[in-house]
Amino acid sequence: MDYAATTPVDPRVVEAMQPYWTEYFGNSASIHGYGRDAAKGLEAARGEVAEVLDCHPSEIVFTANGTEGNNLAIRGVAQAARAAGLGNHIVTSPIEHHAVSHTVEQLCESYGFEMTVVGVDETGLVDPDDVARALRDDTALISVIYASNEVGTVQPVAQIAELARSRDIPFHTDGVQAGGKLDLDVKRLGVDLLTLSAHKFYGPKGAGALYLRRGTVLLPALTGGGHERGHRPGTVNVAGNVGLAKALQLAEADRPSETARLAVLRDRLISGVLSAIPDSRLTGHETQRLADNASFAFKGCEGEALLMALDLVGVAASTGSACSIGDPEPSYVLTAMGLSREWALGSLRLSLGRWSTKEDVDHVLAVLPDAVERTRGLGIP
Amino acid sequence: MDYAATTPVDPRVVEAMQPYWTEYFGNSASIHGYGRDAAKGLEAARGEVAEVLDCHPSEIVFTANGTEGNNLAIRGVAQAARAAGLGNHIVTSPIEHHAVSHTVEQLCESYGFEMTVVGVDETGLVDPDDVARALRDDTALISVIYASNEVGTVQPVAQIAELARSRDIPFHTDGVQAGGKLDLDVKRLGVDLLTLSAHKFYGPKGAGALYLRRGTVLLPALTGGGHERGHRPGTVNVAGNVGLAKALQLAEADRPSETARLAVLRDRLISGVLSAIPDSRLTGHETQRLADNASFAFKGCEGEALLMALDLVGVAASTGSACSIGDPEPSYVLTAMGLSREWALGSLRLSLGRWSTKEDVDHVLAVLPDAVERTRGLGIP
Repeated sequence: MDYAATTPVDPRVVEAMQPYWTEYFGNSASIHGYGRDAAKGLEAARGEVAEVLDCHPSEIVFTANGTEGNNLAIRGVAQAARAAGLGNHIVTSPIEHHAVSHTVEQLCESYGFEMTVVGVDETGLVDPDDVARALRDDTALISVIYASNEVGTVQPVAQIAELARSRDIPFHTDGVQAGGKLDLDVKRLGVDLLTLSAHKFYGPKGAGALYLRRGTVLLPALTGGGHERGHRPGTVNVAGNVGLAKALQLAEADRPSETARLAVLRDRLISGVLSAIPDSRLTGHETQRLADNASFAFKGCEGEALLMALDLVGVAASTGSACSIGDPEPSYVLTAMGLSREWALGSLRLSLGRWSTKEDVDHVLAVLPDAVERTRGLGIP
Repeated sequence: MDYAATTPVDPRVVEAMQPYWTEYFGNSASIHGYGRDAAKGLEAARGEVAEVLDCHPSEIVFTANGTEGNNLAIRGVAQAARAAGLGNHIVTSPIEHHAVSHTVEQLCESYGFEMTVVGVDETGLVDPDDVARALRDDTALISVIYASNEVGTVQPVAQIAELARSRDIPFHTDGVQAGGKLDLDVKRLGVDLLTLSAHKFYGPKGAGALYLRRGTVLLPALTGGGHERGHRPGTVNVAGNVGLAKALQLAEADRPSETARLAVLRDRLISGVLSAIPDSRLTGHETQRLADNASFAFKGCEGEALLMALDLVGVAASTGSACSIGDPEPSYVLTAMGLSREWALGSLRLSLGRWSTKEDVDHVLAVLPDAVERTRGLGIP
């Protein structure tokens, strides 16, 4: 029940990576045969990713993970815009992953940028009109998450992109939770930058990709050799990126059928939980949500303690509250959505994936009520 | 002849990584069983690396590669020092890898830092007295490469570290070429930060480590979740780091015998090349050099063209000159060592490794003279 945290690597992906460890092991920057063999695999992978995203291969920058992609996008665009005298202001949402929010915050605290954080409604949705109102003449970047990692709400990314384009402001979306689950066609979405992470769609940890629309100017967040067209230095993880591409292809092929299958399981989970557990609520949007995400808040039920209780009965899940011993912080996402502390401390994210079955869902429905009740008995700080 | 560019992954390392793709695939930040299994492997790997480096496991930060480690070290220390009002000045050498030199340059050009680049002698050695003279009251960081990736010269790192400590200035060394080849005991070396990259010692691409002495303050170069004790966010590449640790252990165990074996091959290569090819010279120090590195300059012989000629006769090698079509740049390392353009354009790095044999060396000695002669016939721009 925690596929959104990470996924096992698809055996076909492991197999695709295998020759790149020991056989085609060259450094893709080398000009000799070993290097060319590695570069060939790397560029094929880049082409496969570009095909899924409907962009040019040169617009794909391979990274180590989603966090790095988000950092490169945000730091890169913001610092380049400022260097060009184009602006100093970033617009974002209150439900971003920390890789986005902490990066924007550091840019403000340590580098003198300014930010406007637009609100979300009680379902976690950003209103594009709020984004429009937040824009200033010196806005250098808009960054809004495609689908919430915590509550699964899917944002109106295409509408925000249209707005951004009309004002000629680069628009980045963190697509880490969208990879393999939502439409990634960047032409339809209209975004300028989109972040992906392989381990969220049955690819390996240590591999990510950033879509970077041609013409978008970045000051590299990391500097070194000229790899990845100067956008991301460092010897390229060829095997990892071959795995990323293979995983994305496979996930994209299965996406229609898998989305339909998981939505049924998700809805069974949601209605079962809400009917069995008093003082429970669904968090996030009822329909505009990821097919794999069923997230809840339980009043007066500390999230980390609930996770531990669930772990003991064979359920692996996540909470949005941040653990800090004896002093848990309520989920900032739920807080932004208007939930009070006693609800926002008790968040639970159940996320489904390729090997999830109806039996798994029914097991959760059998054990969760008791786990919540016992956790509530511990009280909240 | 290009092991210094990258190495194949040791089959035992591939085997060590394997269970972490599909079996212990959890996110090491998750608190449930899957997460704990992954964290257990990750922390065991951290302990193994710490044992080789003779430091505490908490002083090891896993990264994606050497470039990221160098960026984190340099950006992190410099920006933190400035934020604390401790300084704005960086001392470095002219023979650093681009991951160091371009980072220091960007800090100067885009963030207002100042740098002093101390010289090197004709063997590529930094004189610690020059470093001492370069230090200012506002020096925030010293960064000098442990062993040159291009000419193999090994720097007096312990002496520079002693000097840095006496002035209370953090000292970083890029140890990417030293991993598995030189002493990595950070207590003996006395360094505060040391960068490693797995793929240089028969580990996977996509995995690196930074030694960060306890108490060294960093402003993270990338921001996000609290992974790696807040120093390096992003879902940790558990399999990759397990591979890194295994590879480092294996390389360290073989280091004494392998160093001796390779030094014999290297010296055979050096004396053979110098005696067979007119207008040739060894670059780097005669004795204070990596056991695997035989680097040369050939007067009037363009490096990239020579690499292509060698590739055709089955020799994979590197050059220090940077290719830019029709307008090659001479090696900046050799230029810093005082070589003229017509020599510095013709650099060749031959680097040995685990599967290098006397027969390989003799093959190079058989084909290199003709390759150099034919390349010289093409002239230099």
